[in-house]
Amino acid sequence: MGGRKMNFIGIPGSVTAASGYRAAGVFCDIKRIGTGKGSNKGKKRDLALIVSEVPAVAAGTFTTNQACAAPVKICIERLKRKRAQGIVVNSGNANACTGAQGLRDARETTELAAQQLNIPAELVLVGSTGRIGVSLPMDNVEHGIQAAAELLGSTREHSAQVAEAIMTSDTRPKEVAVEMRLGGKRVRIGGVCKGAGMIQPGMSPNGARPALHATMLCFITSDAAVAAGPLQAALNSAVAQSFNRITVDSDMSTNDTVLLLANGLAGNPIIRKNRGSDFALFQSALNHVTLELAKMIVRDGEGVTRFVTVHVNGAKSGGDADAAARAIANSPLVKTSWCGGDPNWGRILAAVGYSSAKVVEEKIDIAYSLPGGARQIAAVRKGQDAGTRFSELCKIVAEKEFEVHVNLNVGKHSASMYSSDFTEDYVEFNKGDVSDPASMGG
Amino acid sequence: MGGRKMNFIGIPGSVTAASGYRAAGVFCDIKRIGTGKGSNKGKKRDLALIVSEVPAVAAGTFTTNQACAAPVKICIERLKRKRAQGIVVNSGNANACTGAQGLRDARETTELAAQQLNIPAELVLVGSTGRIGVSLPMDNVEHGIQAAAELLGSTREHSAQVAEAIMTSDTRPKEVAVEMRLGGKRVRIGGVCKGAGMIQPGMSPNGARPALHATMLCFITSDAAVAAGPLQAALNSAVAQSFNRITVDSDMSTNDTVLLLANGLAGNPIIRKNRGSDFALFQSALNHVTLELAKMIVRDGEGVTRFVTVHVNGAKSGGDADAAARAIANSPLVKTSWCGGDPNWGRILAAVGYSSAKVVEEKIDIAYSLPGGARQIAAVRKGQDAGTRFSELCKIVAEKEFEVHVNLNVGKHSASMYSSDFTEDYVEFNKGDVSDPASMGG
Repeated sequence: MGGRKMNFIGIPGSVTAASGYRAAGVFCDIKRIGTGKGSNKGKKRDLALIVSEVPAVAAGTFTTNQACAAPVKICIERLKRKRAQGIVVNSGNANACTGAQGLRDARETTELAAQQLNIPAELVLVGSTGRIGVSLPMDNVEHGIQAAAELLGSTREHSAQVAEAIMTSDTRPKEVAVEMRLGGKRVRIGGVCKGAGMIQPGMSPNGARPALHATMLCFITSDAAVAAGPLQAALNSAVAQSFNRITVDSDMSTNDTVLLLANGLAGNPIIRKNRGSDFALFQSALNHVTLELAKMIVRDGEGVTRFVTVHVNGAKSGGDADAAARAIANSPLVKTSWCGGDPNWGRILAAVGYSSAKVVEEKIDIAYSLPGGARQIAAVRKGQDAGTRFSELCKIVAEKEFEVHVNLNVGKHSASMYSSDFTEDYVEFNKGDVSDPASMGG
Repeated sequence: MGGRKMNFIGIPGSVTAASGYRAAGVFCDIKRIGTGKGSNKGKKRDLALIVSEVPAVAAGTFTTNQACAAPVKICIERLKRKRAQGIVVNSGNANACTGAQGLRDARETTELAAQQLNIPAELVLVGSTGRIGVSLPMDNVEHGIQAAAELLGSTREHSAQVAEAIMTSDTRPKEVAVEMRLGGKRVRIGGVCKGAGMIQPGMSPNGARPALHATMLCFITSDAAVAAGPLQAALNSAVAQSFNRITVDSDMSTNDTVLLLANGLAGNPIIRKNRGSDFALFQSALNHVTLELAKMIVRDGEGVTRFVTVHVNGAKSGGDADAAARAIANSPLVKTSWCGGDPNWGRILAAVGYSSAKVVEEKIDIAYSLPGGARQIAAVRKGQDAGTRFSELCKIVAEKEFEVHVNLNVGKHSASMYSSDFTEDYVEFNKGDVSDPASMGG
């Protein structure tokens, strides 16, 4: 976040950090791998519950993929009333491409959770990630929900269970929480997310497609008092600068979901408008939570060895800046060169050139820097080799994290993307094991 | 070409198959790798000349990348007069992102060739492929042109020299030729091409961007008598159904070029219009030459182990059919699953869903077949698992060549793409060797 003053601080934990939330995660064998010898010990959790003491104001953003999963459809429907109290989520099965049965299963999942949580089913939201095209094993789901309901609690251990339960190809759990003061009251926001492949989210509040383009799931809870309008507006802005700006493999999932609950238990003066200092602080804190979570997804991307921030400046329009940044961030040739630590600016220039952004080759500057961008090393000036020693560029691109700065020099608009390299391990991981049809992710 | 009757036959050779063409290829160390011990033996040729006995009617299509290489700019300029007699081409250096010096070098290259060929420089076209951002070694180019001019000839050996001279990461030379009868005269068309990476051409006659999106280079010669208008029209159609429908890695090059010369020496009644049976036959023969060459590029793509034809039918518009086919053909997750022989239709459905094509998930059918499409095995019906045994689908996807058939069932438009799998070898090849800056391809 550079030198900008932030009136919030990072704290440990995630979805149970704010007041009034309990959570739990369990293993219930959603993938039906069998538990062997009757023991569940050592199995990764695959179902989680999050519940607020009181009904919360709720907001969400969802994949704009036209093949969107049953849980996404249910959430979009339920969020019309802008209230929710519980979330049930499973990994191991995406409940996508499952037709009418999928919708019935998603609805039944929320009903089972509602029973156990003693709240109305209409206040339960649902998320799924995992294999596409196979119906949910509802017996397992039911047992999992019962088990999770018995374990509910508010410790860091409980939020860690949720972070684990939503992991699929993730190698690490992803949790972020912050604390701020609003009107003299302590307010917290905490979130968990998952995602490693099928990552280039393009989410909107209702599935209506935004101008642009993981399975990523993210669940955020807050005890802030915020009205529904500003809460959804804050989430839209936060997602636009975080999850919608990351790419691992340019594939948009059927299941991308971000849910945000704000239960008001902090007792701050309610934020009723999309403006004012309280809203601004809440927004900047939410931006921080979502951006840190989004970057964790890229760093933990399948096979990823390098985290690269692409900045495009000097574009004629915001759309042009976005198109150029996305073309670079998604180019297989650019991403494989990063894998080799190769500052191959010719491929970057080619990607900018074939993007839909209006560019003039002879005006394009390209530079590399370490994170933060303080000292940029020029690679290209006015479309040509800047004369920097190749070894100087190699030093930067050899790092695990670096930045690419492209100035189109034709306007004043800019955009950034958070991307990764493309590695043999990504291919190895995703070519699948045909002896295991369960490898089909979503 | 299925069971359709073709009034042309395949013949050996390529650019010297038609009457009145001579060609040659030599090694002149464009990459400056050094020849060692003064011997050029065993080095891959890297410069070629093609020349017609008489000035020919000429047509071309070029990359729509806004960062387009100097030789592309020179060709677009020269083709305004619709005539050409000679082509000079080098590999090892793309002469892209080389500014004013690059334009001077490309022009000087044509002048050197014109001198050696005793023709006006304005009738010489030029192509380059290889490293981006480095000026051409003009001494080597000059020596190469002199040496090639001395070797010119019309045998199959001579066209094979050209096919070799334009190769970069290609593992095989690519030549196709056909023969037909027009107005009682024997007419031939023959072409060479190169390309293996940075392959998703989107060419137009003048760099004006078409609705869609290698370095691929292709040089085609014919002895047909065809006026400039129908010749360019025939080439546009031929490229639209061949080179503009292939993808290896979704990256469009700075240098993509197809040049077609027709010198009229066959003596057929001149084709003056874009219609009539002679034009139709010429078109179908040219379509065959370009499609066979285009498929050779995909089959020889960097690291490619599988050649996959993607057919999308039942789209609302041609643009929708193209968008859906391209989304599937370029999805890293779909392409890595093919690498593993995994019939992962969930990823295909997700790619169709995030494409810009209007689709209704519940109407989508997906099937696999061996080449030819005679016996399609359903994988998805109405957006859901068709119930086919997974092993049945695996049998098809295990093959080196297969087809994917997607029916959107919302309209009558269709499109096909010729694609490949995405392999560890692609990554390994393209991650580059930072000890060798010459690895930057274009």
